[in-house]
Amino acid sequence: MKLGDCRVSVIGLGLMGGSLAAALKGHVRMMTGMDHSSQAVERAVAQKLVDVATLDMEQALDSCDLAVLAVPVRSILGIIARLGRDLPAPDRLMDLGSTKVEVVRAMAGLPPSVDPIGGHPLCGREIGGAGSADGRLFRGARFALVPLERTSPELRSLAEELITVCGGEPLFMGAENHDRAVALTSHVPYLLAAALVDRVKGRLDEVRNVLASGFHDTSRLAASDVTMMMDILMTNREFILEELNHLEELSDRLRADLEEGREARLRSKLDQIRRTKLSLNSRKDQVREPDGNWPGA
Amino acid sequence: MKLGDCRVSVIGLGLMGGSLAAALKGHVRMMTGMDHSSQAVERAVAQKLVDVATLDMEQALDSCDLAVLAVPVRSILGIIARLGRDLPAPDRLMDLGSTKVEVVRAMAGLPPSVDPIGGHPLCGREIGGAGSADGRLFRGARFALVPLERTSPELRSLAEELITVCGGEPLFMGAENHDRAVALTSHVPYLLAAALVDRVKGRLDEVRNVLASGFHDTSRLAASDVTMMMDILMTNREFILEELNHLEELSDRLRADLEEGREARLRSKLDQIRRTKLSLNSRKDQVREPDGNWPGA
Repeated sequence: MKLGDCRVSVIGLGLMGGSLAAALKGHVRMMTGMDHSSQAVERAVAQKLVDVATLDMEQALDSCDLAVLAVPVRSILGIIARLGRDLPAPDRLMDLGSTKVEVVRAMAGLPPSVDPIGGHPLCGREIGGAGSADGRLFRGARFALVPLERTSPELRSLAEELITVCGGEPLFMGAENHDRAVALTSHVPYLLAAALVDRVKGRLDEVRNVLASGFHDTSRLAASDVTMMMDILMTNREFILEELNHLEELSDRLRADLEEGREARLRSKLDQIRRTKLSLNSRKDQVREPDGNWPGA
Repeated sequence: MKLGDCRVSVIGLGLMGGSLAAALKGHVRMMTGMDHSSQAVERAVAQKLVDVATLDMEQALDSCDLAVLAVPVRSILGIIARLGRDLPAPDRLMDLGSTKVEVVRAMAGLPPSVDPIGGHPLCGREIGGAGSADGRLFRGARFALVPLERTSPELRSLAEELITVCGGEPLFMGAENHDRAVALTSHVPYLLAAALVDRVKGRLDEVRNVLASGFHDTSRLAASDVTMMMDILMTNREFILEELNHLEELSDRLRADLEEGREARLRSKLDQIRRTKLSLNSRKDQVREPDGNWPGA
């Protein structure tokens, strides 16, 4: 099945779901958007993110060729558990959840009629919600695809086409590799940002006046949606704890060098780290960040 | 003395010094810029940041009413130690160093003819150097002023005028309060960013593809100039180590809640943290960040 022939239903019209609907609308036969919040549904209609908007998950699942679950990870798990039981099972299922091991494990237990694939767009902003939907969100961003053994070649192709149409870069990964990597690059940074804001919280009067852009950037992720983050933390707990341990070791070594005044060693480490960061920046420059300008857009 | 009658010499034409020169030029009787790098001096001339550019520190110090030291903190300490000895002592001295306790302690030992005040603009970008000088850097940014007992009321006023002309917000602080606060809001975030990049460095092949904006922002400070940061770390070591300890405690508590699966407690903490972060963001919105747009500029 080609994307242009596909009726797509997006379940959840927050930042990810709303943006995906907006990016795909016009490129699919029918775009249906579903959310439990009538405000989100009204917004999706007003902003023309979808062809049809509904509060009824059954209707959305029943009338599509591909359903995309764009809700927090544990809500994804809850919906998957109901498909083919008290909810209609769609022919094809994809999700946009931030962790993948538990999602693809749940997908493996779906009725045989369902063709499932895991997905995770590697973009995002800490301030989500329906009002922030943006069809350009995926442009230049990598988009992880996590197929199961049972995933058909046709669905792999369809998912790739979907991502390409959104301007993203499809990237096939295993679920464990994905979860381990994002534990380090996304979930642990969130916890660091949270701890930093927690400390500032206790000393607000003293430090309020000296907060500058360095602090704001380092702590940006602490503003992330808590329900989304709780689901991420609880479904990726082992890898996150493991990465926290590794990070603490490295941080302890930097601290020990500082404490003992081992200047040459500290400088050499920080020099290497700076070079790594600059090389990551230049890689980043090749791929548009969602907040930047897209050439020709 | 009013700023308009003042001959100002800026020592060091990197991001801070070059930007200050550019912001003040035309508002002072004469703006002299000095740097050891002939490239920086040539750039300052080409970019018209200064009226006069020189490689000769003696000349720059000899021919001014106010000297502003805009070099890394330990270079500031080195210059202060030489004033009135093998370098001419200016009538008025200010610095832009990132830590203040050691600087004002050194200033206290200056010859009595020198009227000194400590300063620290609370803005900055991690990518510095002469090429990045921008006269708008200070607009909307707070600018700490740390007077000594011996600082004259006239110099306090002159420094306030200087900051206001640059578009900044003068903020009088004690040196210890300053250093303790920036340890938390700037120096510890740098070390966290460095540890994070250090960990990514060891796993680059695995994680390169999943790096998104959250990681890039959290780790932005790891690209900071290492000489500048080494001077900051070494002159603010005690407060930084103290803040690292506090942060580790808070981080350990978050980790323990995650490890033990104390969901309600973790969620409630992360909720409070998120609210704090959002309130800091809205405060931030009232004050322009240096990279943003300035109304009417």
